Amino acid sequence: MIKALESVAEAEFLPPEFIRGEVAAGRVVIPGNRNRPSVRALGVGRALRTKINVNLGNSPLAGHTGTELAKLRCAVNAGADTVMDLSTGSDADEIRRRILDASPVPVGTVPIYQAVGMVDEIADLTPEHLIQVIEHQARQGVDFMTIHAGLLRAQLPAAKRRLLGIVSRGGSILAQWMSIHGRENPLFERFDRVLDICREHEVTISLGDGMRPGCLADASDEAQFAELDVLGRLVSRCHEAGVQVMVEGPGHIPLHQIEMNMKRAESICHGAPFYILGPVVADCAPGYDHISSAIGAALGAYHGAALLCCVTRTEHIGLPGCADIHEGAMAFRLAAHAADVALGRPGARDRDDAVSAARRDFDWERQFELSLDPELSRRMREEALRQSAPAPDGGTGFCTMCGPKYCAMRISNETLHEDASTRAVNP
Amino acid sequence: MIKALESVAEAEFLPPEFIRGEVAAGRVVIPGNRNRPSVRALGVGRALRTKINVNLGNSPLAGHTGTELAKLRCAVNAGADTVMDLSTGSDADEIRRRILDASPVPVGTVPIYQAVGMVDEIADLTPEHLIQVIEHQARQGVDFMTIHAGLLRAQLPAAKRRLLGIVSRGGSILAQWMSIHGRENPLFERFDRVLDICREHEVTISLGDGMRPGCLADASDEAQFAELDVLGRLVSRCHEAGVQVMVEGPGHIPLHQIEMNMKRAESICHGAPFYILGPVVADCAPGYDHISSAIGAALGAYHGAALLCCVTRTEHIGLPGCADIHEGAMAFRLAAHAADVALGRPGARDRDDAVSAARRDFDWERQFELSLDPELSRRMREEALRQSAPAPDGGTGFCTMCGPKYCAMRISNETLHEDASTRAVNP
Repeated sequence: MIKALESVAEAEFLPPEFIRGEVAAGRVVIPGNRNRPSVRALGVGRALRTKINVNLGNSPLAGHTGTELAKLRCAVNAGADTVMDLSTGSDADEIRRRILDASPVPVGTVPIYQAVGMVDEIADLTPEHLIQVIEHQARQGVDFMTIHAGLLRAQLPAAKRRLLGIVSRGGSILAQWMSIHGRENPLFERFDRVLDICREHEVTISLGDGMRPGCLADASDEAQFAELDVLGRLVSRCHEAGVQVMVEGPGHIPLHQIEMNMKRAESICHGAPFYILGPVVADCAPGYDHISSAIGAALGAYHGAALLCCVTRTEHIGLPGCADIHEGAMAFRLAAHAADVALGRPGARDRDDAVSAARRDFDWERQFELSLDPELSRRMREEALRQSAPAPDGGTGFCTMCGPKYCAMRISNETLHEDASTRAVNP
Repeated sequence: MIKALESVAEAEFLPPEFIRGEVAAGRVVIPGNRNRPSVRALGVGRALRTKINVNLGNSPLAGHTGTELAKLRCAVNAGADTVMDLSTGSDADEIRRRILDASPVPVGTVPIYQAVGMVDEIADLTPEHLIQVIEHQARQGVDFMTIHAGLLRAQLPAAKRRLLGIVSRGGSILAQWMSIHGRENPLFERFDRVLDICREHEVTISLGDGMRPGCLADASDEAQFAELDVLGRLVSRCHEAGVQVMVEGPGHIPLHQIEMNMKRAESICHGAPFYILGPVVADCAPGYDHISSAIGAALGAYHGAALLCCVTRTEHIGLPGCADIHEGAMAFRLAAHAADVALGRPGARDRDDAVSAARRDFDWERQFELSLDPELSRRMREEALRQSAPAPDGGTGFCTMCGPKYCAMRISNETLHEDASTRAVNP
């Protein structure tokens, strides 16, 4: 742990003692299963650089080991700080093992998916079986696990009044099990067992938001906040048990409710890192949910979220492929960065200033090298030049948007700076 | 004008007297040149639905009449509320004429581009020539014109201290002209002439932000706000002269300064509609500036902007094509809609609720029909089904993301709603 603390401190430009204090207070987690010592040390918390998670995993209808390992490579190349394997196909156990072998970044799972895969009907699940699956995955080396322990029977009437009910897979499974058996959430009732397993294998718990709103109409409603209150109490139990914990959040939230949602979660969950899925800020944009959620995620990160779960453009439509994952990860790195700049995180804006200086100096290669996606930006410039009329100086001193005569950058440089040394970064 | 007021009132679900009052107070403009009576009546203002503008126009290096008319069709099909023809090629006058003939939506221009196109060097521009070009374009039927009258000589030392100087084309051209001739901005000095022309032809003035920041380092600086103060005074002169006016805004602004920028502009410019270009919230994302600016635009619209100028993914790299324009327009319609929902604009969320209900009911066709981009969302679903294993019921009751067994929507519907009549929209 000391080595991990030091790595995190170095990566965040912060003193190790500070990181230690944040970890001790539960405001930073460093996910890493003791059975997977190779995992990259990564800090997740409000005081640190905003992180992004990318979801992998097949479904019973699409994807296999090969596709999921390829998606892992795409995700890591695109800058994913963590990945989750959400596989639900028949080969899910093998895919998880292979992803754990291959992933340099922390890997999360939702164990209830495996448990459901092993029975014919949700009704056939047993609490003991659920616990065994959690233990199995902990032994396999999973670094963090989504545990939907906060969705209780008492919340179901509120969910019934919703436009969209329960849109979390784990949440809907548990709700159905509770309804059929007339019993309480088995993960809530056996939470001490979960804590024992997670403490033993050093698994970070990610408290699932089974009641996250699935549409704007259901945002910030009774069901969502009733579950959040339970999550707050479970956070305390994790802290008391010495188990690292983060809390999952919405979902679908209109723009004007994002700040309130982040602050409420921070306060109720004692500052545990808040891990948000989106949120998307509109329901009517299937095919553009990577953008909708990047808007929500940037605001969420600015107001309190520590980890942003990438949403791809295939959300609400189908399983994402590599290209969708790459694009979604870029949108979320951008959202995370925008929030980090706005929060004044150490060093965050340096990169923007360097890109801007390269723009001023028409140093295209340096601009692209420092950009979020060097390969894409280079390719786009090459394409633009290919479609352009021959340019007087080979095209270095302007772009095809304006051409040389109308290039504001060139005219401004000429007008304002005969002596380039007068340029300075505005404080 | 009475007919236009009524059309706007109907489109906005607001009473005509209210629109009349907002127009009289200068808080709403309805751009429409008297020489182009065919233009669609469109209200732009803080109290109305957020509008989007799409930029068209070739450059001396790329594009011609055919490409620009095709881009106009793309823009209108994608839902552009207004377009601007920013052509700077040798055929710019012909392109403008053809766009004015063809466009059902208000068309804006930046007349100084044509003026510069007619001389060899910026130094050769004359104030009288500038005025003649404005008059020419007003006669042609241009509905709104960007006039960079607020950038004054006194602001140039502040621009010199910037990382990126002046990134507005019109602004950099005027700055160079002022530097070379040692004279004041001719558009400022002849603003009464501009007002006469615009009043005669019923052209709406869009006061250009020549000093808009071109990078985060220059945001909210002395140069930007010195120009804004002048723009505020020019707004008053427009109102006194009976000329409709809006004000152009940034640019590149970090997330945490957007609210302040919107409120400052609203206050200094007497509530004139604020027309923002982005803003992008990071400088380091060439290739993703449609997303970067959608984040800024959503926040900008929420905090005060009335018209959002689409930024495409080719920003900072090259001239956009039809596909880039379509994608950028969708990102901005999404941003505008997210703000309208957050602001509680009449009817805005109805569409989201209808899409969500269609999702719940697995009515894919209705979901897509109501979505921002029906064609794209349909195509993505078809593609997902093609790549999927054969689905038990032809694939209507779930998607490839989860498949039927893990479908939260199906499980939730089963669990919570044996009687579908208990569903209700959360107030």
